[in-house]
Amino acid sequence: MIIELLVIGNEILIGKTQDTNSNWIVKRIAKYGHKTRRITVIGDEIEEISSAIQEILNRKPDMIITCGGLGPTFDDMTNEAVAKGLGRKLVLNEHAYNSIKKAYKRAYEQGIVKLDGMTKEREKMAYMPDGSTPLPNTKGTAPGVKIKQNKINIYILPGVPNEMKTIFRNVILPILKDKQGKFYQKGFIFSGIGESHIAPYVTELEEKYPDLWIKTHPRIGLSVEVEISITCFDKDTCEENINKALKKLKQIVKELDGKIIKQNT
Amino acid sequence: MIIELLVIGNEILIGKTQDTNSNWIVKRIAKYGHKTRRITVIGDEIEEISSAIQEILNRKPDMIITCGGLGPTFDDMTNEAVAKGLGRKLVLNEHAYNSIKKAYKRAYEQGIVKLDGMTKEREKMAYMPDGSTPLPNTKGTAPGVKIKQNKINIYILPGVPNEMKTIFRNVILPILKDKQGKFYQKGFIFSGIGESHIAPYVTELEEKYPDLWIKTHPRIGLSVEVEISITCFDKDTCEENINKALKKLKQIVKELDGKIIKQNT
Repeated sequence: MIIELLVIGNEILIGKTQDTNSNWIVKRIAKYGHKTRRITVIGDEIEEISSAIQEILNRKPDMIITCGGLGPTFDDMTNEAVAKGLGRKLVLNEHAYNSIKKAYKRAYEQGIVKLDGMTKEREKMAYMPDGSTPLPNTKGTAPGVKIKQNKINIYILPGVPNEMKTIFRNVILPILKDKQGKFYQKGFIFSGIGESHIAPYVTELEEKYPDLWIKTHPRIGLSVEVEISITCFDKDTCEENINKALKKLKQIVKELDGKIIKQNT
Repeated sequence: MIIELLVIGNEILIGKTQDTNSNWIVKRIAKYGHKTRRITVIGDEIEEISSAIQEILNRKPDMIITCGGLGPTFDDMTNEAVAKGLGRKLVLNEHAYNSIKKAYKRAYEQGIVKLDGMTKEREKMAYMPDGSTPLPNTKGTAPGVKIKQNKINIYILPGVPNEMKTIFRNVILPILKDKQGKFYQKGFIFSGIGESHIAPYVTELEEKYPDLWIKTHPRIGLSVEVEISITCFDKDTCEENINKALKKLKQIVKELDGKIIKQNT
């Protein structure tokens, strides 16, 4: 599957919060052989969110995952903006309403919150684009949302990391596994040869094995240490070709008088 | 100024690397009163990069900053892709060529790299969109690039954090300071009242002070601890209004029987 992420939150755009949700999500997407094509990070603004969702839909991924902007406050406007972007009404979802009500009732009885009953702000979290299925949030109150448009599955998740992760594990992970592809990643670290020195050999191997993506990462200054990593998606030949390419590269490093300082990364 | 970031690198999209460059950059953009409107993260693919740069140009920011994809290897293709996106030729920049040559000569003489002279891969880093000004990279070899299109300043920076930061400090920071706006951020943390409980008061204050952006962040589970933070861009009234709103919010927290557990954040 081709997946796009839409991360929503002013706090990320002013640098108050380092977005770690994307990294957590894309690792899992890659692990099960799917491809994250793009991550878009935008602020809590209706126009910005609704046009971003339209742009992503126009690129026709198989799945869109959004993070953030589902809370009870005024500036949490993801559901309203996504509804606008999809050309749907924002409607009260009864099922979501009841689960939010129940969560606050429990929290009140346990003394976690001091305010009993539903308020306008709590109710707000139950408003979703018409046609949505709420996704239970067992770690917080704002439910996630699942909705389909033009055959594209859209999952709207909260931005609070443990809430996002819980819904992701319960709802999205099983789909990634179910449609699982293959993903391989292997590498090693060497020193004594610069990135540009090894580059022509990397190019040669990439031409020989077009399915492999061979990347060199300089680790210290002017390439005193270089990590080479090879990734390959979804082909039966991935594992065999990665092993062949790694063997060849290690041999080249030795011939060029470099030193392998970590055999497997 | 309105600024957009374009982060380029497959390693980020598969989760091998957590992108910390964006957070570092947007903090500085905000600090000097400018606005990051969007961060776009894409892979090392010619079509993807060139169409992303066109999309960003169409949104007419004042500045575009790209990170990543400037190295000597085959998969570093930012300059070529940006040239394509801008409808310009990719040409050898003599100045960049000479500085790369000099950097490798020095590195060779110091025993840091073992391969002397220019190679196709090293030369590649001197190819830039026609009309570029190279930006010296004192921490590595791949120069940054400055180019202007439709009055929009585009800065193409390397992805290696210390190289990116050095060029940013030397070239972009002085511009941010020169066109400096005002940015304020203040907040506090309280406990004992949920996010949804305080929400109507936040809305009321946001209506009273439309320039303030008041955000609540639940910190533990069902909002047992909440951080409230207020930000304001570029208005003479920012400081005064933030202080008024903070005073009011602290008073409300006390009236609702909540507890302020950190006075300033």
